Amino acid sequence: MKTIDFYFDFGSTYSFLSVMRISDLAKQYDRQVVYRPILLGPIFKSLGWETSPFNMYPIKGRYMWRDLERRAEKWKIKFRKPDIFPANGLQAARVAVANAKESWCVRFIQEVFRANFELNLDISKEEVLISILRQVQNSDPRSILQSSVEPSNKDKLRQETELAQKRGIFGAPSFFIQEEMFWGDDRLEDAFEWGTGKN
Amino acid sequence: MKTIDFYFDFGSTYSFLSVMRISDLAKQYDRQVVYRPILLGPIFKSLGWETSPFNMYPIKGRYMWRDLERRAEKWKIKFRKPDIFPANGLQAARVAVANAKESWCVRFIQEVFRANFELNLDISKEEVLISILRQVQNSDPRSILQSSVEPSNKDKLRQETELAQKRGIFGAPSFFIQEEMFWGDDRLEDAFEWGTGKN
Repeated sequence: MKTIDFYFDFGSTYSFLSVMRISDLAKQYDRQVVYRPILLGPIFKSLGWETSPFNMYPIKGRYMWRDLERRAEKWKIKFRKPDIFPANGLQAARVAVANAKESWCVRFIQEVFRANFELNLDISKEEVLISILRQVQNSDPRSILQSSVEPSNKDKLRQETELAQKRGIFGAPSFFIQEEMFWGDDRLEDAFEWGTGKN
Repeated sequence: MKTIDFYFDFGSTYSFLSVMRISDLAKQYDRQVVYRPILLGPIFKSLGWETSPFNMYPIKGRYMWRDLERRAEKWKIKFRKPDIFPANGLQAARVAVANAKESWCVRFIQEVFRANFELNLDISKEEVLISILRQVQNSDPRSILQSSVEPSNKDKLRQETELAQKRGIFGAPSFFIQEEMFWGDDRLEDAFEWGTGKN
């Protein structure tokens, strides 16, 4: 089956919308989603930004939260503005990278995003991740957390982030159909249409 | 008739797409477009940017040009990447502000955008604006240019730009349905849908 590469950061607001929408679209377009967690932090740093542009520029931030609220309503996605923004998604990203091939991983990703953007939980906290892991799979959550911080897995996440930047990524969500890149939840349909003759 | 406020900058790439699309949409949604030229320069400066973010961050710029090309194709709009970016649209904006009530003004705006983004002409040049003015109206182009640089008209453009920023604008195009703001050509349909019960 043809694939769509889906790059996201667990703290990214518009990535939340895409995580909630992409599996239905993938069915509709008969594509397989390759979930690729990355860290926007190092990418933003290389552009000279110490935090999200939405925090650096309050006028942009105010608009983004209103826009997100409208978009969530449009797609019937439950949303509340989290108290912490951007959330630190490092540990969640490590778990997702280490367990990319597990059948429960997509649900893990979805539940972490819901925890952040619907339930207003702090996803940097171990107990939050443990509770999500308990919901979505049957192994010992602590051993999953432990194996995710092994040096080889930490490296893997770093490499994924570096590769993302090499491919031209400067924000999330970003989607690739082969080497054609689309940025933003508002380009998700365009990405799926790409190459079908409908774009 | 209900209105939509359409804020744009003559050098803005995505404003080009909106200028080419908005009059058809306005007919469809039975709205009157209020064209409101502003200058992004002073707004960007207040955010600490000396030029377009697309020039400050080449990785963003590369993506934007590709995205613009794809979007133009999608909407069947002729486009070529201009040699000068961002173009200096100061003089064109002054003409548009001074003549907002003239029936030819919308065509003037459209032709200036075409000059910049389809014909690769330098819209800061007087002869380019004169040639466009000749196309779209019957008065003396030079007297129109002269009256547009009168202090009261220069002030008017400055005030429009300041008002735009007060309303929350940080980029172009931006649209308002009353005080509800939408940013980007990709939110143009959403703006028209706003309040119709379809949004």
